[in-house]
Amino acid sequence: MNDLAASSCEACRIDAPMVSDDEASVLIKEIEGWHLINDGVKKLKKEFNFSSYSDSKDFTNKVADMADQEDHHPQIILEWGKVTVIWWSHKIKGLHKNDFICAAKTNNISKN
Amino acid sequence: MNDLAASSCEACRIDAPMVSDDEASVLIKEIEGWHLINDGVKKLKKEFNFSSYSDSKDFTNKVADMADQEDHHPQIILEWGKVTVIWWSHKIKGLHKNDFICAAKTNNISKN
Repeated sequence: MNDLAASSCEACRIDAPMVSDDEASVLIKEIEGWHLINDGVKKLKKEFNFSSYSDSKDFTNKVADMADQEDHHPQIILEWGKVTVIWWSHKIKGLHKNDFICAAKTNNISKN
Repeated sequence: MNDLAASSCEACRIDAPMVSDDEASVLIKEIEGWHLINDGVKKLKKEFNFSSYSDSKDFTNKVADMADQEDHHPQIILEWGKVTVIWWSHKIKGLHKNDFICAAKTNNISKN
């Protein structure tokens, strides 16, 4: 488990600092397989592939349970063969360290 | 329960007939709140709003269970406050009657 995965989300206020591009380029290296995307808002995205729909559902539920525990909720796209997870911080309309923490936790869930 | 919701999906072959635009304009009236979208492939889309994340998760699971039972799998987008469900038939890259049947069943799940 890396340092990010062992961290917990802090409360994200509307004036919380966004992760800078320099910080993001360092943090992204700690979360295998995640990509920075920008659809007007900077986000973290990763696709997880599964050979059974049942496994996709289980993974979706585990990520959703972790999200509820951290009180930080991603977009989870469940479909045949894959689950796509997208993290960002709604309140600051961008990336907070919380998103990298939750991406690392999502990776851990996929490995269990 | 309307006729669509009481139907079951039939096996969708690669040469199965797409629903025509005329048929779609009739069938769409039977599935409250669903919209026809076209992102290169014609699809049915509806957003379901929930006041708790737990309710969103429960709905996601119920729709996924129905999908598995019908062996027809939608895109389900789970996020804070809402679940978006998108039905289309991958094999024919468009809309089959199965999609309208599953949209009607999704409405029934949301009402239970």
